[in-house]
Amino acid sequence: MRDVSIIGIGQTKVGEHWDKSLRELGYYALHAAMQDARLERIDSLFVGNMLSGELTGQEHLGAIIADFAGLKGVEAVKVEAACGSGAAALRMGYIAVAGGMADFVACVGVEKMTDKQNASVTSALAMAADNDYEALHGLSFVSINALLMRRYMHEHGYKKEDFAPFAINAHANAVNNPYAMFQAPVTQKQFTEAKMIADPINLLDSSPIADGAACVIIAPTAIAREFTDKPVRIRASAIATDTVAVHDRRDPLFLEGGAMSAQKAYAMAGVGPHDIDLFEVHDAFTIMSALSLEAAGFAPRGKGVALALDGEISLGGRIPITTMGGLKARGHPVGATGMYQIVEVATQLRGEAGPNQIKDARLGMAQNIGGSGATVVTTILEG
Amino acid sequence: MRDVSIIGIGQTKVGEHWDKSLRELGYYALHAAMQDARLERIDSLFVGNMLSGELTGQEHLGAIIADFAGLKGVEAVKVEAACGSGAAALRMGYIAVAGGMADFVACVGVEKMTDKQNASVTSALAMAADNDYEALHGLSFVSINALLMRRYMHEHGYKKEDFAPFAINAHANAVNNPYAMFQAPVTQKQFTEAKMIADPINLLDSSPIADGAACVIIAPTAIAREFTDKPVRIRASAIATDTVAVHDRRDPLFLEGGAMSAQKAYAMAGVGPHDIDLFEVHDAFTIMSALSLEAAGFAPRGKGVALALDGEISLGGRIPITTMGGLKARGHPVGATGMYQIVEVATQLRGEAGPNQIKDARLGMAQNIGGSGATVVTTILEG
Repeated sequence: MRDVSIIGIGQTKVGEHWDKSLRELGYYALHAAMQDARLERIDSLFVGNMLSGELTGQEHLGAIIADFAGLKGVEAVKVEAACGSGAAALRMGYIAVAGGMADFVACVGVEKMTDKQNASVTSALAMAADNDYEALHGLSFVSINALLMRRYMHEHGYKKEDFAPFAINAHANAVNNPYAMFQAPVTQKQFTEAKMIADPINLLDSSPIADGAACVIIAPTAIAREFTDKPVRIRASAIATDTVAVHDRRDPLFLEGGAMSAQKAYAMAGVGPHDIDLFEVHDAFTIMSALSLEAAGFAPRGKGVALALDGEISLGGRIPITTMGGLKARGHPVGATGMYQIVEVATQLRGEAGPNQIKDARLGMAQNIGGSGATVVTTILEG
Repeated sequence: MRDVSIIGIGQTKVGEHWDKSLRELGYYALHAAMQDARLERIDSLFVGNMLSGELTGQEHLGAIIADFAGLKGVEAVKVEAACGSGAAALRMGYIAVAGGMADFVACVGVEKMTDKQNASVTSALAMAADNDYEALHGLSFVSINALLMRRYMHEHGYKKEDFAPFAINAHANAVNNPYAMFQAPVTQKQFTEAKMIADPINLLDSSPIADGAACVIIAPTAIAREFTDKPVRIRASAIATDTVAVHDRRDPLFLEGGAMSAQKAYAMAGVGPHDIDLFEVHDAFTIMSALSLEAAGFAPRGKGVALALDGEISLGGRIPITTMGGLKARGHPVGATGMYQIVEVATQLRGEAGPNQIKDARLGMAQNIGGSGATVVTTILEG
């Protein structure tokens, strides 16, 4: 199999794009990535998206974006794995290029959520959970995560305020990311006083819904330098699944899907957690950051929050996370999020992260999570 | 790249499965295919589906079916390309096995449509068209096809009754398919007297919505005979796209996406239309059969209907189509349809088509169409 590299990246600002359609957002990110790679030819297009049908009345996004981008005839499909759709689209592209089926593949993550009422969006997002056994009984994503967070606090002896560093770190990093939805810091006091959403999850534990699109162009590493001075190698791209309903898991506080996905990725890359210089976690809620850090081997069980309290997740810490703002402050356009994570890791490895640059960053990892850990996509990149 | 073969096939009966959930349908087809291949291990699962979110409130189908099937940890994603989702899922699996990323891949097509009111389903299906430029203005799929059919009749001098052979042939073949929704023949008189839906399309020009699931298991050809005495080689699997809105096409009566997809497939397989022994067309409406036959090179422009009138599409004809009933009589569970086509071609090439067996069938082709020809997936199989 061929070695594969990212030769171009592109993204739109995350936010409320009431003046832009879904196809426009997708195209802007694709166009930016093609310009970045100085590329005019695309063999295949994989579009990661979760909710275009439910929230915008449009399925068939592969053809819609290929058509709007003028990529006449190109192979194009949509890939869906709930909130893990973005990185799953990269995985499909990676398989195609590594296996020799295509040379230049565009992987787009796109989502448009803010045109609908919040209640509709909450209900649409619950389609990532188990409809028959969770959502139908009234469980939303925030309530599932609230149950996990309460249990975690009980099992491991944390207070609610101990989760603040995840939000504070994400917002601090987003200040320097022009593509972030919230370029403003938050304080411990603001976290403590934030409005409760589903006890113990408050507003600052939660990532915001948003519109946005991100794209990477990948190609065989052997020809990557014809298109960019800073190719970023894909050392691993792996998907693992777990039960969709949380109550079916042996231990709801351990993301087995996250652990299996990380193990597959470490094996592909021949590295371990100690080799990773930065880690983009799927911080849809603060509790998910802790569980992902533990599943991926950066902290023992129950110690993910301690890692944050010790300051080890900040830019200068042992394992910097959410270095460009994470889901919390960059924003969480669900089907696009995984691709934003990839673009952000690539930005770090290209040395283009500005004031947020991790010094001498060589290996970066992203973990994109669908549902409550039912689909986990782990990507390891090398600069 | 590795040569790839189908080592197992499975399907549920197509119909109104009010007593079975989406995950059950998907699992039944997957289980049947795994039993057929005498296989217990699956590396990756690709689920073709279009409307699970809109019609059943469940996205994240990859994980849902992997979970229900007990395939703990396995890679699983949903692939969507409107009505072309089924064969698009096979294409993803083909890329993974051919490229060496996986050895045993299950490709499932599944859809559940009959639990909702017809108006909701018509509206949901319109998400395969261009929402901003077609569906929002009131165009449904049947009305788009009615416009195409009327223009075709005008351009090429056909009467409405000339389309009858497509429906009559499909129903005649479905009589011997125990998995078909309608195992009953129809006559020219019934066709002529059928209720008008959108002039000139009547009820017997139209395929029925339905529930159903089909599955194929694929593996490297080099090891296929360890699992089956009748491996079916995948000689080609290709996707091409066209504009989503029909009014954007140079000639709305020629499926450029269908032609490009077929040309890619012929080039991969090193064959031409004259080498093909049977062709599963995407007969969502009779007009689509004619356009697909012409795009794939089985008839000159405007002569697809003449081919049918000459009796050349029947089991003993020059190019037998819809040999197990097609979308018209087997039924059209949209995201599953492409996989049913693959299963049916494989059934013919294994010599298991019973009274419908095409004598000495060696090469079979299927063309699965998303939208009004915006995504076209062509698959060529060899027995």
